[in-house]
Amino acid sequence: MNVNELKFIYEGKAKKLFEYENNVLIYYKDDVTAFNGEKKDNLIGKGKINKKISVFMFELMEKNNVKTHFIKDIDETTFLAKKVEIMPLEVIVRNYTAGSFCKRYGIEKGKKLKMPLVEFSLKNDDLGDPMISDDAIIALDICSKKDLEHIKNEALKINNILNNYFKQFDILLVDFKVEFGKNNNEILLADEISPDTCRFWDKNTMESLDKDVYREGKGDLVDTYTALIRRINL
Amino acid sequence: MNVNELKFIYEGKAKKLFEYENNVLIYYKDDVTAFNGEKKDNLIGKGKINKKISVFMFELMEKNNVKTHFIKDIDETTFLAKKVEIMPLEVIVRNYTAGSFCKRYGIEKGKKLKMPLVEFSLKNDDLGDPMISDDAIIALDICSKKDLEHIKNEALKINNILNNYFKQFDILLVDFKVEFGKNNNEILLADEISPDTCRFWDKNTMESLDKDVYREGKGDLVDTYTALIRRINL
Ligand SMILES: Nc1ncnc2c1ncn2[C@@H]1O[C@H](COP(=O)(O)OP(=O)(O)O)[C@@H](O)[C@H]1O
Ligand SMILES: Nc1ncnc2c1ncn2[C@@H]1O[C@H](COP(=O)(O)OP(=O)(O)O)[C@@H](O)[C@H]1O
Ligand SMILES: [Mg+2]
Ligand SMILES: [Mg+2]
Repeated sequence: MNVNELKFIYEGKAKKLFEYENNVLIYYKDDVTAFNGEKKDNLIGKGKINKKISVFMFELMEKNNVKTHFIKDIDETTFLAKKVEIMPLEVIVRNYTAGSFCKRYGIEKGKKLKMPLVEFSLKNDDLGDPMISDDAIIALDICSKKDLEHIKNEALKINNILNNYFKQFDILLVDFKVEFGKNNNEILLADEISPDTCRFWDKNTMESLDKDVYREGKGDLVDTYTALIRRINL
Repeated sequence: MNVNELKFIYEGKAKKLFEYENNVLIYYKDDVTAFNGEKKDNLIGKGKINKKISVFMFELMEKNNVKTHFIKDIDETTFLAKKVEIMPLEVIVRNYTAGSFCKRYGIEKGKKLKMPLVEFSLKNDDLGDPMISDDAIIALDICSKKDLEHIKNEALKINNILNNYFKQFDILLVDFKVEFGKNNNEILLADEISPDTCRFWDKNTMESLDKDVYREGKGDLVDTYTALIRRINL
């Protein structure tokens, strides 16, 4: 890869994007943030692990007929992806109660929901990623009804795939956040799937195996993520 | 009415409820509150006006085949209603952008939405009436999918009826909040419909004819409500 062909596009909280031919290179930084950027650190080795998990998960999705932006793995910290126009929605799927959901409704953590549920937030850090209803998404022209239905179905499909995968290692998928984007009018799963964007709990101890360890200051995050990739045989 | 037959049930921010035989007497206080109780006043004459508007609106709903808790008018400040078990949801219908909706999504006030939208909040003052998605309502067993669909349809029907009514007086119905409850397993429109729970704007000047006058300290609320009932011929 000729570094001169790379044009910097965007630096986010956890990743950097570069243009490469018509595609994007997604570089995973070691940065970690929580509480909308209020807590921040640089944890050596984190980017590498999250990239590895993301690549594995995107390949798993493709095998299960979920269309993703993933093209190919590049090196320890970077993969190549189709460039998409990100839909400004955080698509959250919940199987158990946790995090902001518990706080918002004053309910206990760790209760299994009657059914997996899909929630949307407007992707806007300045507004604190506010929750948005399906109807409001349509009424504000954020996306079409058809696209929204598609995204919801994909999110539930992704949930099934992830649940099945993690079950074999006695890991509960509590919730996760994904982002979708459009490339040539096709909706693709984009961004990342990693312990930064999912809640995983040990099935028996209910111990967190994800970014909550950092949010709650409960231990070394890189150690946690290293144990996770070993446990799932990556 | 024999006062001795009345058993006090509940005092809320704007109304008091008394048991009367198997029903409830709903007494409208002169109290007004805003910003989740942070701003409070007692405005002589307000209760009377809101009771009058509510009674008229419930009668209008019944005429248009919306089932309500309303039984009959009693006196200047009180009407008789069927006692319901309130569903802990604030059902909000929006036609134009305003209020918390604008703040939440960082959008301009007064934009006509592509279609009327129904939003739900969990009715819980301590939690600040947090927004809740349709799926979360079901997953948390707040109500059944069937009841939720029914409530949504009723809310849109109420919106049509109110829109048609106010249109003839050059008044825009911007948004409103209603509550539903169950009586003998039947879902009834309950609580109130008044300028405390609706946003009305003059079609030409876009001036507020509702509680926003109080929220924003823009004038005398009783004068505003008095002008409103005259304008709509009550
Ligand atoms: N394939 C893609 N094409 C274009 N943008 C993408 C793609 N995948 C992810 N993105 C966007 O790139 C950014 C990734 O960086 P990240 O550090 O996660 O940012 P943020 O701080 O906004 O969460 C996000 O804004 C994400 O929406
Ligand atoms: N028909 C009814 N039966 C029982 N409760 C009702 C009925 N109509 C309204 N309510 C409830 O009575 C209370 C009305 O008082 P209000 O001052 O508006 O209270 P709040 O401060 O909770 O909004 C509300 O909690 C409302 O849900
Ligand atoms: Mg991100
Ligand atoms: Mg009330």
